[in-house]
Amino acid sequence: MKRIERACFEAGIKLGALFHQFMGIPVGFENVDIVERAMESCVRLQPYVTDVRVRIDRDRLREKISKFEYTSLTPDMLYAEVEVSVGDSVVKAYLKWDEELRYPLMKIDI
Amino acid sequence: MKRIERACFEAGIKLGALFHQFMGIPVGFENVDIVERAMESCVRLQPYVTDVRVRIDRDRLREKISKFEYTSLTPDMLYAEVEVSVGDSVVKAYLKWDEELRYPLMKIDI
Amino acid sequence: MKRIERACFEAGIKLGALFHQFMGIPVGFENVDIVERAMESCVRLQPYVTDVRVRIDRDRLREKISKFEYTSLTPDMLYAEVEVSVGDSVVKAYLKWDEELRYPLMKIDI
Amino acid sequence: MKRIERACFEAGIKLGALFHQFMGIPVGFENVDIVERAMESCVRLQPYVTDVRVRIDRDRLREKISKFEYTSLTPDMLYAEVEVSVGDSVVKAYLKWDEELRYPLMKIDI
Repeated sequence: MKRIERACFEAGIKLGALFHQFMGIPVGFENVDIVERAMESCVRLQPYVTDVRVRIDRDRLREKISKFEYTSLTPDMLYAEVEVSVGDSVVKAYLKWDEELRYPLMKIDI
Repeated sequence: MKRIERACFEAGIKLGALFHQFMGIPVGFENVDIVERAMESCVRLQPYVTDVRVRIDRDRLREKISKFEYTSLTPDMLYAEVEVSVGDSVVKAYLKWDEELRYPLMKIDI
Repeated sequence: MKRIERACFEAGIKLGALFHQFMGIPVGFENVDIVERAMESCVRLQPYVTDVRVRIDRDRLREKISKFEYTSLTPDMLYAEVEVSVGDSVVKAYLKWDEELRYPLMKIDI
Repeated sequence: MKRIERACFEAGIKLGALFHQFMGIPVGFENVDIVERAMESCVRLQPYVTDVRVRIDRDRLREKISKFEYTSLTPDMLYAEVEVSVGDSVVKAYLKWDEELRYPLMKIDI
């Protein structure tokens, strides 16, 4: 297996994991920052990760927030990017809601 | 602690657990039946549970399904009822999406 | 439904939710503090919660940590307490691993 | 991006997702079969998946089961394999607990 293939595999693991671990998490304006940082910290621990950024869409949060001032994290609110390095092979992968497909699309840049 | 209070506590545990374990699960028309049955089986294993029913809203599923013919389970698609018995104290608790509150409301009947 | 019964139900929801949302989360010594704070922040958002404390057992963490310097959160590592107030009815509920039962026991003090 | 790289990425997504969606799920001898089938059904829905097999280790289940006759799914109990096909590029990926590393290792065959 080539390093680049390994890097692609590892990047996929990180995005799949992030998405499914955190769907449903209670989030509101009071805790959105700490939730983003905690999510990043969970990705950063994992093998081959050299960078990560997680962002919960504040506009969507505002739209979806309940009468109780928070909501459960849903796919349309989550953006993430992760950089994975295996030797000198570096890939960047993204998770982003695609409104047209109605799907949390995961993509990779090599 | 009275039996009825214990039953209320236990019913709450079951609904909180069900909701947060399964948010984000991939669901489409092909697997919605088995997913419902598996979810029920998970509740049924737990202490004091005497009955359970889980239902994923097919209309919502149709609305939310992606171009890839499935979606991630979101709060607005999930209905559940659980009966908990502690001695002769029996309670029925419900989880149901409330469109006005934009919230997965959990209620109890005693 | 009496206030005390409602408080018991709500306390159960919070503990069941906390446990099942966060099982499997990547945790190591580098992020255990932020993960605990983020978990508390998620509980604090929810209706009727007046206090919360989450603690991941450092000794267990040390025992279970992988060669990659982190592990996935398992039931034996998690301690939580939550205070719920419905009017003047206040209950404290606890989640604690019971080694003898091999079970994450949830209890309530009224 | 080559097809083989895309296949590796997609395989990673599936294993990361499976692991983190289902950690903590209540499982006992009564529901282990339906839980395995439901987990497989969730993987099968996802893009590019051409085969999947999920297996919960019965010996581990027996060891870890609580006094209440079930337990929460932990990393050491879960085995999975998934086949992903992108055009004529086919990869098989595995998730298997590694006792020495104390880690749910994910690997790929190309």
